[in-house]
Amino acid sequence: MSGAEKLNRLYALDRERMYLSRAAAVLHWDEETCMPPRAVEERAEQLAVLEGLAHEKLTAPETGELLRDLGALSSSGVELPLPRNTEDAAGVPAGLPAAAGDFLRVLSRDYNRAARLPPEFVRESARAEGLSQAAWVEARKRGDFSMFAPHLKKMIDCAGKKAEYWGYGGSDAGGSAYDGLLDSFEPGMGEKEISALFDPLKKRVEVLLKKIAASPKPDTGFLHLDYDIQRQREFSRELLDGLGFDTSRGRLDESAHPFTTTLGFNDVRITTRYAENDPMSGIFSVIHEAGHAFYELAVDPQLKATCLAEGVSMGIHESQSRLWENVIGRSRAFWEGWFPALQARFPARLAGVTFPAFYRAVNAAGPSLIRTDADEVSYSLHIILRFDLERRLISGALSVDDAPAAWNAAFRELFGLEVPDDASGILQDVHWSMGSFGYFPSYALGNLYALQFWKKCRADIPRIEQLLIRREYAEIHAWFKEKIHVFGRRFDPAELLEKATGEKLSAVPFLEYLETKYADLYGF
Amino acid sequence: MSGAEKLNRLYALDRERMYLSRAAAVLHWDEETCMPPRAVEERAEQLAVLEGLAHEKLTAPETGELLRDLGALSSSGVELPLPRNTEDAAGVPAGLPAAAGDFLRVLSRDYNRAARLPPEFVRESARAEGLSQAAWVEARKRGDFSMFAPHLKKMIDCAGKKAEYWGYGGSDAGGSAYDGLLDSFEPGMGEKEISALFDPLKKRVEVLLKKIAASPKPDTGFLHLDYDIQRQREFSRELLDGLGFDTSRGRLDESAHPFTTTLGFNDVRITTRYAENDPMSGIFSVIHEAGHAFYELAVDPQLKATCLAEGVSMGIHESQSRLWENVIGRSRAFWEGWFPALQARFPARLAGVTFPAFYRAVNAAGPSLIRTDADEVSYSLHIILRFDLERRLISGALSVDDAPAAWNAAFRELFGLEVPDDASGILQDVHWSMGSFGYFPSYALGNLYALQFWKKCRADIPRIEQLLIRREYAEIHAWFKEKIHVFGRRFDPAELLEKATGEKLSAVPFLEYLETKYADLYGF
Repeated sequence: MSGAEKLNRLYALDRERMYLSRAAAVLHWDEETCMPPRAVEERAEQLAVLEGLAHEKLTAPETGELLRDLGALSSSGVELPLPRNTEDAAGVPAGLPAAAGDFLRVLSRDYNRAARLPPEFVRESARAEGLSQAAWVEARKRGDFSMFAPHLKKMIDCAGKKAEYWGYGGSDAGGSAYDGLLDSFEPGMGEKEISALFDPLKKRVEVLLKKIAASPKPDTGFLHLDYDIQRQREFSRELLDGLGFDTSRGRLDESAHPFTTTLGFNDVRITTRYAENDPMSGIFSVIHEAGHAFYELAVDPQLKATCLAEGVSMGIHESQSRLWENVIGRSRAFWEGWFPALQARFPARLAGVTFPAFYRAVNAAGPSLIRTDADEVSYSLHIILRFDLERRLISGALSVDDAPAAWNAAFRELFGLEVPDDASGILQDVHWSMGSFGYFPSYALGNLYALQFWKKCRADIPRIEQLLIRREYAEIHAWFKEKIHVFGRRFDPAELLEKATGEKLSAVPFLEYLETKYADLYGF
Repeated sequence: MSGAEKLNRLYALDRERMYLSRAAAVLHWDEETCMPPRAVEERAEQLAVLEGLAHEKLTAPETGELLRDLGALSSSGVELPLPRNTEDAAGVPAGLPAAAGDFLRVLSRDYNRAARLPPEFVRESARAEGLSQAAWVEARKRGDFSMFAPHLKKMIDCAGKKAEYWGYGGSDAGGSAYDGLLDSFEPGMGEKEISALFDPLKKRVEVLLKKIAASPKPDTGFLHLDYDIQRQREFSRELLDGLGFDTSRGRLDESAHPFTTTLGFNDVRITTRYAENDPMSGIFSVIHEAGHAFYELAVDPQLKATCLAEGVSMGIHESQSRLWENVIGRSRAFWEGWFPALQARFPARLAGVTFPAFYRAVNAAGPSLIRTDADEVSYSLHIILRFDLERRLISGALSVDDAPAAWNAAFRELFGLEVPDDASGILQDVHWSMGSFGYFPSYALGNLYALQFWKKCRADIPRIEQLLIRREYAEIHAWFKEKIHVFGRRFDPAELLEKATGEKLSAVPFLEYLETKYADLYGF
């Protein structure tokens, strides 16, 4: 086979794997939105077959051989630096797509992440995860951490082993085990880098929250009366349409937990949920998930059906959803554009509410027990608490048995609140029960990326406030598409950030945004 | 490997194939009901991957070896007769599920049907089918048969080759090529058997249609006013619920063409479509598809995720849907139960309509150009026309170029109608464009099976009229479950019919049913 033929063969293998993953995504989406309840067990078996085959395709020995032949892996399987310009890559002939070098680099990483895990370990972990999630559901229901503790120990053990298989945290490996886990969600990001960002973030957010706590609270009562669900649905569709979501390439449905999923290059679906006494929850979920969808829908069509055709990391993805939900979606200009439409849907509830009162209500901030209920100021502290606990759990500095007390102590220190029970404390999130350690920081990193992008976007589009007031988003979409979305996974987060903004990752723009916005909102 | 281990390995291989097919069914269902329009091309590629893998699993050499080892295939690959009682099967140890012999027999047939087709032929046929279907859509739109003719020739050629690979119609093979095609839809049924049923059927139906034509026509105008679609939806759900369709194991959705699909053992979904000026069309589609679903949902749970866990043939499947749609769903007793509920949904349209007028209107019969619009009397003639043409097309006795004239002449003879254009004539159905020759007879066979089952069911449940009037279907469901549904594919159609009714296939019960019902309806 010539170099070009080898590359094409790799594209074909990758495409088959991607299509199996997309098919699995269709089955997952269906399970959350449509599936009749009694189909749940067999659906799990169907998914196991699809995901097993996708894993087989990715880890096929042929893939490894082709990656070695094309200079992407060393003979011992180490990922080799590839020149960006494909023509210079060893073994790869001239005249190939510009993204071929990136394709080989990212596929090598995916291959190593999958192929370095022994099949026996993968099966054993999957089984343990299933048991762990079931135990967590039950433990949370009863508020009984001891039911979950042995499973959490097992999940920590699996996570450590996984990182070691990947080449982290072992006796002669570089970086901590936690570094390896972080890197799988946010390529290039380690424990040290995140601490350097989170430490100053924590200090300035704490100061800001104290100022907010000392100020009069806005009235939010009018947002917690009964709002007809059918009208909420209608407003969500009007809003989504107004935001520029293309329903010829996606859909909005309802599920127990809102999510975004990519079922194909022209098929990105979002969900929300509606609560009668909390209309803004459904609306902000729609905006948040639409932010994820805009990213997936704007990837370069040339990357279609390759491993490059999706968002590059959890953090960059969250930057897009949080930008839309909070920075744009909770801004004064945004609601100057949309409040009249919302009032028109709910005249009996909102006709007598002034715009400033509404704007203050949707931005009310203050301590809360539950991460997913948190406002955009205190949200970061919820993440910092989890980051601190999970790195110590993985390193062994904190034992599982001591974890609830450590959680409660940290919560007291950060928010000045007592945790009444583990269900609203350490048991509130699903992540650890699935073995997803290193995932939480992405949420806070998303906020930081978002404000760095936004600062540059505002500088490039000076009349952006006017556009938001007029509900015109095309220029904003075009900016994000050109600077971020179009590249898919071609550039790592740090590289993407630097290309788009000329900056390295920093908490400063996010903090300045919060301090300015909340000083104005709370009048301090 | 022991015999038991070999059998278990076969079950595991088959399960993986079935799950891949079920996953493909989820993607198909999604495409027809939910998918955003621009996803259509990539969805086809995703489906090709899933279906290709399912085919690979089924035709894996390991499957053939295991079937040989267990005595289900001869060393040259011929299907061997297996004793019903598994314990007596060569190589199969004692103590295995009673259905193991049937499993081996049916899997051998599936294996041979798939493995005897060379992969190159399968790919070439799939490509030709894609082009043929696209050409048919365009040809039908323009009413131009010549655009479709070369594709129809290709489809006939492929069908002939397929039958020959299977062992029919070739120089030293038994049975005609068309026999082979028929057998793939209706195991055990050949051209000769079908002719013997269709010839007397045609004669007596023609006599009946002449009597109907000579009688005064019922008024159907009140069924073609505007009926609110939302109310049609509500009535369909009420009806489906009343029929005993379990929504914890299925769903009702909407699609361009109504269909039933099995996505899992506890997941059988049906669709319908609603037309504002034809409410009964959507309602009868719901009843028809529910008939298919009742069958799939009542298969023995022990057969779950095996090749036995579905309806045995197209004809037996149609017997269930047509029984519910026509024999039950267009009966006087059925509507005595449901007409008041329908009137209550549409008081402005139906309050002034008497029950006899409504009953006559939903049973109006007479010649029509389009098969799918036909009443239950003339329907069989549409099938007989197609049966006669397609067997001659496959044998070469009729050329493609002469086919439109042959269609129109047959139509004139059967219905006394001139076909105004090929779009309402030979181009009206999708089947031939997909290479599905031998499929049409199933629809008419379904009517015959249905009335043989029904005759026995009525004899076993003497108060069945009263049950229908009271909308109580549990005993009817139980009868069909016990006699037919529970077996899945374990018994071939003829064996199933004989077990259930003690009879061989015959058109007489169907004809007697029609003659009695229509003499009463039209008063002759």
